[in-house]
Amino acid sequence: MTSSLKGIAASDGIAIAKAYMLVDPDISFDKKEITDADTEIKRLHKALDDSKAELQLIKEKATENLGADEAEVFEAHLTILSDPELIGNIEDKIKTDKVNAEEGLKEVTDSFISMFEGMTDNAYMQERAGDIRDVTKRVMSHLLGVELPNPALIDSEVVIVAHDLTPSDTAQLDRRFVKGFITDIGGRTSHSAIMSRTLEIPAVVGSEKATTSVKNGQMMIVDGLNGIALIDPSESEISEYQKKAEAFKAQKAEWDKLRNERTITKDGVHFDLAANIGTPDDLTGVIDNGGEAIGLFRSEFLYMNASELPSEDEQFEAYKKVVEGMKGKQVVVRTMDIGGDKELPYLPLPEEMNPFLGYRAIRISLDRTDLFRTQLRALLRASEFGTLAIMFPMIATVAEFKQARAIYDDERQKMVDAGKKVGDIQVGMMMEIPAAAEIADKLAKYVDFFSIGTNDLIQYSFAADRGNEKVAYLYQPYNPSLLRLIKRTIDASHAEGKWTGMCGEMAGDQTAVPILMGLGLDEFSMSATSILKTRSLMKKLDTNDMKKLAERAVTEAETNEDVIAMVNEAVNAEN
Amino acid sequence: MTSSLKGIAASDGIAIAKAYMLVDPDISFDKKEITDADTEIKRLHKALDDSKAELQLIKEKATENLGADEAEVFEAHLTILSDPELIGNIEDKIKTDKVNAEEGLKEVTDSFISMFEGMTDNAYMQERAGDIRDVTKRVMSHLLGVELPNPALIDSEVVIVAHDLTPSDTAQLDRRFVKGFITDIGGRTSHSAIMSRTLEIPAVVGSEKATTSVKNGQMMIVDGLNGIALIDPSESEISEYQKKAEAFKAQKAEWDKLRNERTITKDGVHFDLAANIGTPDDLTGVIDNGGEAIGLFRSEFLYMNASELPSEDEQFEAYKKVVEGMKGKQVVVRTMDIGGDKELPYLPLPEEMNPFLGYRAIRISLDRTDLFRTQLRALLRASEFGTLAIMFPMIATVAEFKQARAIYDDERQKMVDAGKKVGDIQVGMMMEIPAAAEIADKLAKYVDFFSIGTNDLIQYSFAADRGNEKVAYLYQPYNPSLLRLIKRTIDASHAEGKWTGMCGEMAGDQTAVPILMGLGLDEFSMSATSILKTRSLMKKLDTNDMKKLAERAVTEAETNEDVIAMVNEAVNAEN
Repeated sequence: MTSSLKGIAASDGIAIAKAYMLVDPDISFDKKEITDADTEIKRLHKALDDSKAELQLIKEKATENLGADEAEVFEAHLTILSDPELIGNIEDKIKTDKVNAEEGLKEVTDSFISMFEGMTDNAYMQERAGDIRDVTKRVMSHLLGVELPNPALIDSEVVIVAHDLTPSDTAQLDRRFVKGFITDIGGRTSHSAIMSRTLEIPAVVGSEKATTSVKNGQMMIVDGLNGIALIDPSESEISEYQKKAEAFKAQKAEWDKLRNERTITKDGVHFDLAANIGTPDDLTGVIDNGGEAIGLFRSEFLYMNASELPSEDEQFEAYKKVVEGMKGKQVVVRTMDIGGDKELPYLPLPEEMNPFLGYRAIRISLDRTDLFRTQLRALLRASEFGTLAIMFPMIATVAEFKQARAIYDDERQKMVDAGKKVGDIQVGMMMEIPAAAEIADKLAKYVDFFSIGTNDLIQYSFAADRGNEKVAYLYQPYNPSLLRLIKRTIDASHAEGKWTGMCGEMAGDQTAVPILMGLGLDEFSMSATSILKTRSLMKKLDTNDMKKLAERAVTEAETNEDVIAMVNEAVNAEN
Repeated sequence: MTSSLKGIAASDGIAIAKAYMLVDPDISFDKKEITDADTEIKRLHKALDDSKAELQLIKEKATENLGADEAEVFEAHLTILSDPELIGNIEDKIKTDKVNAEEGLKEVTDSFISMFEGMTDNAYMQERAGDIRDVTKRVMSHLLGVELPNPALIDSEVVIVAHDLTPSDTAQLDRRFVKGFITDIGGRTSHSAIMSRTLEIPAVVGSEKATTSVKNGQMMIVDGLNGIALIDPSESEISEYQKKAEAFKAQKAEWDKLRNERTITKDGVHFDLAANIGTPDDLTGVIDNGGEAIGLFRSEFLYMNASELPSEDEQFEAYKKVVEGMKGKQVVVRTMDIGGDKELPYLPLPEEMNPFLGYRAIRISLDRTDLFRTQLRALLRASEFGTLAIMFPMIATVAEFKQARAIYDDERQKMVDAGKKVGDIQVGMMMEIPAAAEIADKLAKYVDFFSIGTNDLIQYSFAADRGNEKVAYLYQPYNPSLLRLIKRTIDASHAEGKWTGMCGEMAGDQTAVPILMGLGLDEFSMSATSILKTRSLMKKLDTNDMKKLAERAVTEAETNEDVIAMVNEAVNAEN
């Protein structure tokens, strides 16, 4: 019998394949007093040998499918498995304390882990703690006779079923075989959802009970268009969904034809459709999907995928690569937005009760001006290779923007004084804090542009963490309150002859786009994979009608649902 | 040589006394292998006996000074110290594992604590975990020969120096001897700051380094008017501050004369000055300070000081006591605002990454309508004994307010149908979420009144946790962005013939009051101890001038500092 799961549609498309459960098994155990230490030590060595053989296989597969870089971590794990000090200590523990191998393994590795984690001034050793934790899990699984999931060994088409997917989980996945995702937690703006769109893999997130409802190897359909998954579908359901998958493919082919067109509405108005990117590697996707600019280049990858602060030169090379690659089209780089849920092993940040309301983004940059100045110098140097713009994240007050801009002006002046070449750079800010949107008229005097970050702006406006399902109902991008903040921002920028873009998820949302056109948003920056779909939609719409729609939405509507109904009515009237 | 500390002025007044360090000593130790178990067991019993003697003394003092209720916890601690199972286990551990007494004590108590904490369905046993932790700390201090602070034993005038003060710390303080507070952390709206104002004890919070700069017994001056503290002051400094203290006392005496006056401005306009209260016991303070109403009765105390959900009858009695006590003057009760930083042992809430952006207040009430309906019934029953109003906390959308109001209407109707007496109740909402303030015009159609909760409104508007010092600079109550949200709320209510109050810290802030008068705020609700000071200020001001000030603040000012300068200029011009 087919059963079904409902979740949030995170990435378009339909996947039909067998379930692969990416779920850690229970590796708890009872501490036991033992009499025969030799038997326990033999059990330990058997588990170590089995782990080694398994890791060797994983390493080979990973090298073959994902490349040597991704496989390196497994080499580190193998080294730990052969460490005589570690193994000797476990043997001693079993003999002296007369405990079972599980307890010996746990006590010794716990003490190594806490020792390494204690080395807070040594990022390398801190990372080793994570490696030991991973290896311990593997050896323990062999001691207990339970099976760990080994995603690197997947060699046939699957749908991944997981509680959540972390960036390191996906690094191990071979895209040829992974046809779809379904997770228990997460919303449309969670990491797993954004990743699934970037990889163009159909996905349903926040299903709440995928991991408890699905069994490994069961046939599954993941419908990322409607946020539904079917477990054990019937033959007729499979063929019905195969047709839907074909239809979706055909529609995508239609969209693909728009790749080299500019984005022009029914009444001939042009809008800029730009892309959000995370690393220079994402450039290909932008060009393949006909992006007219890069509206958000997140600079965090430079800090996150590193074991120490990135040097000015490293940063310069990355910015230059993107700016050059876009051949004169504008690239807006956001200065570092670390803190919040993004931690760096080598830059310890304070423990915070509410990290989203804490020390992050520009607040760190204005405090650690050494880091900020390094980044600004790298950006200034890259500016001569194309059209670069800079924006500051999390600006809440006029004073903060002026302070950040003064530091930028100072670095720029030093470079000019030293006779170095610097391009024309627009300096703007993310509009993502309600207090800032409220005084957009004051800020508009100082900025060159605004870029509305809807993910954070919604979360702060509604006081609802976007990662928390208990308050997911408050993610209301169409609520008139949010639309008014957006309208105020756009109007304020235009009154000063400036422009406003949007780089949150909302910019590519098919219900929001008609209203945003009506509000006069200048630039829409989205996942590259949403660009062609949005271009197709805009071609069908008349901006004068959308202006009337937007006016009604901000004045007449009371709720999110009111606005959705208005949009459906207005868009249907166009066709 | 005098040295000084700078912090945040949290509670008016000047204290001159010796420092009492309320700081836990280091009780870490090394695990040692021992040969002579008997000696270790003797050390253990000596520490147990010393702890008992100490606790006995503390219990007597606490009973004498604070009453039997506050002293009860120490009786519980004494019982634990005589528990044969606990002590037997520690002795066994020392003998069998050949470890020192410290390690034996720690291992055994850790296992008891985690066992009790694991009983998540038994609040009583969970609380016992805390008791064992406290007792362990005391026994460990005797084993290690370090001294724990024992605030219950204070018997001469002191200034308390602490990293932070928790509600349980203050429960142990004898108000006759505690003349002032100074803490390392906290802002004007932290628990310790609010408490110091309620107790009328001069206080400086957020000094960052009080605990590391002061030594026990050093002479100190705490200047709660200016947020300054002096360590080891000279004779001349002491006599200078004694004069300041006298002047402050004289001013307070002047304010006291206003107790039975209404609040009338220079040009004859009346404003309601109300009080915020936490329990029915706070009524005395409201009446003593001439409160004209209760603008915020926090109903959480009913839930927080309990071991199970309060029954309808218990709640009814508490509400009735306050409503009756105010003799017809209005009492605004806020429905339960739990979650966030307020946890209940008997109502497990989900672990959240950002609790302030999570499942709290009306979000819980709309989900757990059983709890909500019980509270509403208790409020409806209490309404016939005076003038009761109800407000819902954390309303973000029109849909939420309508849903909460419908549940209220349903309970009211049921009561009317059953022939029970129900008073006229105004039903309003807290205005504390930016999205709600943005559409105040829509919400004003449905509410009877708004009450602006500035503590949360500021925190969400600026995306800055008010408990986090790293972002304390973003607590900007005078920033034009916040003033605009307040103006929009007041104007929207007046356009619908409704009224707006304010029950955050800002309502009693002497810099904010002139602007709030100018913006037309109808009711100011504050700590009872701020009422007379505010009445005195308002008497000196002309509302027409304040309207001009407010207009300039919302249109011309760019920053918090701009507004402070405008207020100083306008207020000085009045005198």
